[in-house]
Amino acid sequence: MKLASLNEGRDGKLVVVSRDLTRAALVNDIAPTLQAALDNWAEIEPKLQDRYRALNAGEVSDAFDFEQNDCASPLPRAYQWADGSAYVNHVELVRQARGAKMPESFWHDPLIYQGGSDSFIPPRAPIPLASEDWGIDLEAEIAVITDDVPMGVSPLAAEKHIKLLMLVNDVSLRNLIPNELSKGFGFFQSKPSSSFSPVAVTLDELDDAWRDGKIHLPLTSHINDELFGEPNAGIDMTFNFPQLIAHAAKTRPLGAGAIIGSGTISNYDRSTGSSCLAEKRMLEIVTDGSASTPFMRFGDTVRIEMFNKEGESIFGAIDQKVSKYPGAS
Amino acid sequence: MKLASLNEGRDGKLVVVSRDLTRAALVNDIAPTLQAALDNWAEIEPKLQDRYRALNAGEVSDAFDFEQNDCASPLPRAYQWADGSAYVNHVELVRQARGAKMPESFWHDPLIYQGGSDSFIPPRAPIPLASEDWGIDLEAEIAVITDDVPMGVSPLAAEKHIKLLMLVNDVSLRNLIPNELSKGFGFFQSKPSSSFSPVAVTLDELDDAWRDGKIHLPLTSHINDELFGEPNAGIDMTFNFPQLIAHAAKTRPLGAGAIIGSGTISNYDRSTGSSCLAEKRMLEIVTDGSASTPFMRFGDTVRIEMFNKEGESIFGAIDQKVSKYPGAS
Repeated sequence: MKLASLNEGRDGKLVVVSRDLTRAALVNDIAPTLQAALDNWAEIEPKLQDRYRALNAGEVSDAFDFEQNDCASPLPRAYQWADGSAYVNHVELVRQARGAKMPESFWHDPLIYQGGSDSFIPPRAPIPLASEDWGIDLEAEIAVITDDVPMGVSPLAAEKHIKLLMLVNDVSLRNLIPNELSKGFGFFQSKPSSSFSPVAVTLDELDDAWRDGKIHLPLTSHINDELFGEPNAGIDMTFNFPQLIAHAAKTRPLGAGAIIGSGTISNYDRSTGSSCLAEKRMLEIVTDGSASTPFMRFGDTVRIEMFNKEGESIFGAIDQKVSKYPGAS
Repeated sequence: MKLASLNEGRDGKLVVVSRDLTRAALVNDIAPTLQAALDNWAEIEPKLQDRYRALNAGEVSDAFDFEQNDCASPLPRAYQWADGSAYVNHVELVRQARGAKMPESFWHDPLIYQGGSDSFIPPRAPIPLASEDWGIDLEAEIAVITDDVPMGVSPLAAEKHIKLLMLVNDVSLRNLIPNELSKGFGFFQSKPSSSFSPVAVTLDELDDAWRDGKIHLPLTSHINDELFGEPNAGIDMTFNFPQLIAHAAKTRPLGAGAIIGSGTISNYDRSTGSSCLAEKRMLEIVTDGSASTPFMRFGDTVRIEMFNKEGESIFGAIDQKVSKYPGAS
């Protein structure tokens, strides 16, 4: 099943979207918003699945053309956004770029940061930022949405709490990170609002590409219409999603609608490219002695998308332009 | 005006509460939940104020006795919970306790961590935790709730976005902090679910105790019914709430219902006691060479409350017992 939230009100208007992303159908008789559906998922999901089957069969009379440009992030705001760094080879490289050494324990103990979740950006809206000097970077990732997860859940028990999958652009302000992390309390200003793909999908939409708690498909990123990377999300993922969920829920429950991210997708096979500029710059430093690729500038575009084996877009595309924020009124 | 959320459903049932905390009145004809009220505050607040005036005048026919035990946290779940460390003398001491030195910049650059906001604990419910070995600690604090705050807001412009005040118990797991902070991504497992006071109040309820973006009253904490601390929240607050909000909103907007915390209240005048055990233990180390006060054990209780100049409770009391979490099913 594919779901989207049309950009309306604070929480969007939930719709089901056809498998080929061309048509949509309202579901306000079932659940007005995705959060409302997740709050009561066991009861709501079968009804949404019925509508989805009817939509794909051309049997919904008031179906309409689906426009990715009309979408908010599937959860326009959420109660929980926790982002892992599951591709530990990437963490190692970025640390190296900051002149910091990665402890060996990072291979065994998942790294997760608590993100802010009150102001996600729509997948086709500009990314407004006040300064290019902040070192504007994309981070192309995958995220899952859970139902209620009890505190202390095991990785084995965590997998059944994964209800939806989507893509993320976890925008990062690289030049704000060193000072912020040196203060010891983690990211705050260096992680502005994130964006998610137009469509969130249930696990069955991935067929056998969803296994071992991972998506085994490349994640494609373009910057200014040029291919930037297509690393495979199923390769070199040190911690799978159930492990990330279990880590996040060790000392507290996770509420329905919790979003758990994978961190920047990254493969040891560097020929697949990167999912963030920081990694590319690090590789340039290793190869050439200095970084030649700049961070993003106002007007630059980023496009993040994932295709199935048939070459069809699964989630629609995050497609955004970095824009100059004029300042608060 | 005083507001509370009765413990019902995921988001509580909004009520107005009389100034003396004895009576309450339903407002479901105005706004079903506090989040719904905050989403449309300019329109909703006057209507709630009318009901509040009527309640205090004894003119609401279906008013009922207010029971703090029936309350959820005012926002049982929220989209944003960002907690500052505005009492920098406390940060200095706790760092000292961890054997870490505090940079001088902490006196000028606010420290805020991104908290998790999907599972707040009711103010009179147990704090369930799996292990006493985690170093269970209270942190008695104040928090504000904002309406929509634009990105890049100035401290001067931030003050008008403060709509409600409440108390917080920002439970901390001290023995999980050193390893977690050493990983560089800030707190996660070391900050389990927080709790908030039964009642949230508008600024006018504080009279002249609310000025300079601070509350100028003592915050009283009891552990196992023994007075633990009553430092004045208006003294030694290095950064006021408007400054904390401006810091939090530097690179992104804050959504309506964002909760911004003060951090543990702490005065240089140590005769006022402390608002967390870590500080008391640090002071013992300085005085006696070692810490004699243990962290909290299962069965221990914590009570956090604030009184006005007439000795009346403003927010009701957070009153909780630490309990053994039996584990996930």
